[in-house]
Amino acid sequence: MSGPRVLVVAATHGNERNAAWLLEGWRTQPHTLDSHGLELALEIGNPAAYAANCRYVERDLNRSFAPPLLVDPRRQELEVRRARELLAVYGATGPSPACVAIDLHSTTSAMGNSLVVYGRRPADLALAAGVQARLGLPIYLHEGDAAQTGFLVERWPSGLVIEVGPVPQGVIEARICRQTQLGLEAALAVIGAAGHGCLRLPRHLVVHRHRASLDLPRDADGTPMACLDPRRQGCDWQPIQAGDGLFCRRDGRGTAYAPPADLVEGPAWPVFINEAAYGEKGIALSLTSREIWPVEAGWGEALSALLER
Amino acid sequence: MSGPRVLVVAATHGNERNAAWLLEGWRTQPHTLDSHGLELALEIGNPAAYAANCRYVERDLNRSFAPPLLVDPRRQELEVRRARELLAVYGATGPSPACVAIDLHSTTSAMGNSLVVYGRRPADLALAAGVQARLGLPIYLHEGDAAQTGFLVERWPSGLVIEVGPVPQGVIEARICRQTQLGLEAALAVIGAAGHGCLRLPRHLVVHRHRASLDLPRDADGTPMACLDPRRQGCDWQPIQAGDGLFCRRDGRGTAYAPPADLVEGPAWPVFINEAAYGEKGIALSLTSREIWPVEAGWGEALSALLER
Repeated sequence: MSGPRVLVVAATHGNERNAAWLLEGWRTQPHTLDSHGLELALEIGNPAAYAANCRYVERDLNRSFAPPLLVDPRRQELEVRRARELLAVYGATGPSPACVAIDLHSTTSAMGNSLVVYGRRPADLALAAGVQARLGLPIYLHEGDAAQTGFLVERWPSGLVIEVGPVPQGVIEARICRQTQLGLEAALAVIGAAGHGCLRLPRHLVVHRHRASLDLPRDADGTPMACLDPRRQGCDWQPIQAGDGLFCRRDGRGTAYAPPADLVEGPAWPVFINEAAYGEKGIALSLTSREIWPVEAGWGEALSALLER
Repeated sequence: MSGPRVLVVAATHGNERNAAWLLEGWRTQPHTLDSHGLELALEIGNPAAYAANCRYVERDLNRSFAPPLLVDPRRQELEVRRARELLAVYGATGPSPACVAIDLHSTTSAMGNSLVVYGRRPADLALAAGVQARLGLPIYLHEGDAAQTGFLVERWPSGLVIEVGPVPQGVIEARICRQTQLGLEAALAVIGAAGHGCLRLPRHLVVHRHRASLDLPRDADGTPMACLDPRRQGCDWQPIQAGDGLFCRRDGRGTAYAPPADLVEGPAWPVFINEAAYGEKGIALSLTSREIWPVEAGWGEALSALLER
């Protein structure tokens, strides 16, 4: 082990158990994961929540990495302390700094095997483009959402989330494990290639760029008055047009999709449809625009630069 | 409202939310549920767990109705107190006694729309046979399992569970809601017919009788060494034979199904495959025998007798 260090995190949400179960195996049998010559730090993100089989104990760990929160001495929630702990070890000034963080998640939504990228850091886009070129995974580009901030991978020089579903919380499925390992090994292959100066990227990157999130219709006390239209369940990454069925009430009456003001032209591509954990966040689904970007030479250079020692 | 009283319970497990969401609607708009002339008592089984979106707070409410537990004054867990409370109101000596209890559940297993009957009370078998004749639902007959006792419906003169899946914990899906309401209305139709002396039952009842439960292979500290074989995921009610793939390890190596000693002849029919909540109970799936029983005249008479006032 002498290559650059990559932080691999599972169970950042304690009830997303597939990657955590794999990770426990990789720790005792390192040869079962192809590290592509990289030094890996394997961490259970939220051990307390993992032990309790719940998403989090006091607050969502994957919303606890916002700098104002991290530096505020009054904030002592378990997850804020855990965020500081991970940064103290694997952050730039820690004893074991990591240059890339890969955070392994699962979802009850039918996202398939997919990537989530936060913002437009060139190294992240290189990493995502490299994985997309290998496995064809769709990419959810999360940006411009002031209500959702403080993601783990943002605190490392580069990083992304591998998000696999559908799988219920608390359930381990062989298919989900297999997809997770495939996604991670593809990411490590890209990082390894960048470290050796032999990264080849595709000419284009397909991203689904976050535009808005929609909540269920709710009554005055916050109870949902409708659930998702059954024709939309499981249809992540599939376009929705104005007038398509979106919600339905207990009596079967439907509510059609009405695009937000800045999304009236053409379809939107929903993601995270009916994710169990997002009810409390007021998100029934998120809407994206599908965009094809030319891959810039600077992206791969940025990723390679991080890996130089 | 003047017919016999039926207790309808949802969210006995607080993270099984589909029936609870429906029930809140039935309370405010009673005409949206066909009660078949019966007086219904609509209850959220575990309001505290429902508010917290977790299965239970201190112990599983649907294992808290065992008489020794109920009469033990030292047992004061939230769920034991809630069990006593429901019995104090709707039990035989309460102000609003119910003659039948219908407990609405959901599962992460691919059970479809199904019934769970506890033991062989004639009235329960009549109710199940009547619903099976109307909707064709499969029936899991739970009996002879000393490790799982204290179910809610056992404390009322008759009752059964309507179990619908697959759906993740904490998620509401229109399809699951629709199946739940269909199952409940069929049960109420059967009870209503029995109360009017016009219950007609089929000649045969198909039951899947509980025989054994299997746990995942675990290492010394209890961590699962394998997960379910992906070919078995979602295959509830489908026969399994000796030698069929059952579990698979992280490295993909498989473990074949080896029948318990008393199930070596012919296939078994697995149910509750990979139910999220059963991991803590050490149950990866339960095995049943598929049996066809002649419907006895006494069953319908027993159900009708309960409904006489």
